[in-house]
Amino acid sequence: MSPTSPSRPIRVALDAMGGDHAPGVTAEGAVLAVQESHGSLEVVLVGREAEVREALSSRNADGLAIEILDAPEVIGMGESPSASLKGKPHSSIHVGLGAHKAGKVDAFASAGNTGAVMAASTFILGRLPGVLRPALPGYFPTVSGMCICVDVGANVDVRADLLVQFATMGRVFAQHSLRKENPSVALVNVGEEPGKGTEVVKETFERLSEMDDLGFIGNIEGRDVFHHGADVIVCDGFVGNVMLKLGESFSTILPHLFGTEIEKQGLSADVASGVKSILRGVAARFDYENYGGVPLLGVGGTAVIGHGGSSARAIARMVTHTAELVAGGVTEHVAQAIARPSADTVSA
Amino acid sequence: MSPTSPSRPIRVALDAMGGDHAPGVTAEGAVLAVQESHGSLEVVLVGREAEVREALSSRNADGLAIEILDAPEVIGMGESPSASLKGKPHSSIHVGLGAHKAGKVDAFASAGNTGAVMAASTFILGRLPGVLRPALPGYFPTVSGMCICVDVGANVDVRADLLVQFATMGRVFAQHSLRKENPSVALVNVGEEPGKGTEVVKETFERLSEMDDLGFIGNIEGRDVFHHGADVIVCDGFVGNVMLKLGESFSTILPHLFGTEIEKQGLSADVASGVKSILRGVAARFDYENYGGVPLLGVGGTAVIGHGGSSARAIARMVTHTAELVAGGVTEHVAQAIARPSADTVSA
Repeated sequence: MSPTSPSRPIRVALDAMGGDHAPGVTAEGAVLAVQESHGSLEVVLVGREAEVREALSSRNADGLAIEILDAPEVIGMGESPSASLKGKPHSSIHVGLGAHKAGKVDAFASAGNTGAVMAASTFILGRLPGVLRPALPGYFPTVSGMCICVDVGANVDVRADLLVQFATMGRVFAQHSLRKENPSVALVNVGEEPGKGTEVVKETFERLSEMDDLGFIGNIEGRDVFHHGADVIVCDGFVGNVMLKLGESFSTILPHLFGTEIEKQGLSADVASGVKSILRGVAARFDYENYGGVPLLGVGGTAVIGHGGSSARAIARMVTHTAELVAGGVTEHVAQAIARPSADTVSA
Repeated sequence: MSPTSPSRPIRVALDAMGGDHAPGVTAEGAVLAVQESHGSLEVVLVGREAEVREALSSRNADGLAIEILDAPEVIGMGESPSASLKGKPHSSIHVGLGAHKAGKVDAFASAGNTGAVMAASTFILGRLPGVLRPALPGYFPTVSGMCICVDVGANVDVRADLLVQFATMGRVFAQHSLRKENPSVALVNVGEEPGKGTEVVKETFERLSEMDDLGFIGNIEGRDVFHHGADVIVCDGFVGNVMLKLGESFSTILPHLFGTEIEKQGLSADVASGVKSILRGVAARFDYENYGGVPLLGVGGTAVIGHGGSSARAIARMVTHTAELVAGGVTEHVAQAIARPSADTVSA
């Protein structure tokens, strides 16, 4: 599980059947990613061989480093993660993760059923030593770039020791993805003062305050998130999921709000079109496609989860991002951070 | 506690010392409210008599139905609610609520320390029969108007029976403030399907589903809030507080995001100014000053809480809104709704 040497290409298994527009869009995404990698990336498309081959044929993939790994079963976007885990051992998700576990690929990426990918990743790759629960990070756009929120949906019922590990793993992910050596870490709360929040959050605050190598700066309120109050914000998966989706909806409500206002103020055509072009630029900041996908933190490998609605461009970005995570040794760094005494919360 | 007859003016006790700009702004807000009420409103300014009289003197209040009720103590915005509850029995908050409890005024309104007002309101006015915990509603702007979220900070640690009461009380408040006879009610969750969420949220979903007179439409995700997925959205005070503040921050980040984008796209001066004027209109939709204040639902009276940063205009709106709540008999309707068998969750 050591970072791969730059000498050989990084091999990423991509769930060809994952996402609303699979396998056409996933095949196209694989082609884009490999083309743009200049030989540093190989993609293994995992799915129903005939369908995947068919999807590739129309997207001149000849000569590209793209292989197909057959997986006869497909897990639908709406299927129960636990049921699919037991009932479909030959799904593209299981086969792809199995290939990663067996060392045949360096990572697995999927825009499929998030719950199923999380469950199968934890089951097949296992948890890194000391990790209590894997956590899913999310990107939030901010006035000065973006910040990372952990957890955004993997764990809705949490304890303080889980939130402390989310902070530790989120910091490592931020060091890599935000390219900051010492990212700031804050706890999402209802007030800035210590002593605020639920019993679990209060206990978490106490524990994070005692960790001197975390970069913990205290509590952060909802109003501070988009103002980049911190590089990493920590919360349970319920709060994180609600915040993430509220933020994503920004790009879809702005056109409504601006349309109404443009009518109300009766702008000239050219001003109105200027407003709309500005609006597109701003809305793009809140578009999940900018980020491609996020790794499930804490599992024994690199499993990246993308948005179900991903376009070919988003799929390509997810695959490229996955290779970057492997090259950066993020999984190894998470393992080291959790193993460090200050981050050891298992005993707690 | 019966609705006051329209024949006599409604008397509102206003915390003259509450808010970042008190007592100047509160005195001015009282003057505005009484002037615009055309005799239907009387305001009792509660605070340090000399300071309040001084503040009024420069705001030609002569002849207006404004009285002063002396309260020698002041609770600061940062003070601990529990400490102030015990330590400052003669604060403007306590004296004002005491006047309401004694029937000398029909309601109390404050832009002061929210925690202190909530604690003192519950302590002095008591809870309505059957109410487990008072809850604080919040307004969210939506593409088609606004919706109401309960709770936005009064209760961060909750149980299913509390959330069920929040739904019942929120529905009554929405009937009045949104002027909808049958508002829709939804549960904030991480997915739309039943069976999603924390243990508490799952149990709440089951209970709300059994209430046929609530207008419950199921789960709502973060992305649906601003798209007006429901008239009333129910969640614990931690989630609600984070969502409310995240939403409020939209009005403050939009100028940053648009400024950057305008520079990037290098717009002509007139287009840029057009964009900015549209932006002001949109940002105003997210401005809490539109709403003035919200009542603490479930206490034995009408106690309205405003934003600490309220302007005189916002204070006036809060006072007017308070009088509307009294005239509408909202407290009585909450009492009736909680007393109804279907809403009775005490036994649970």
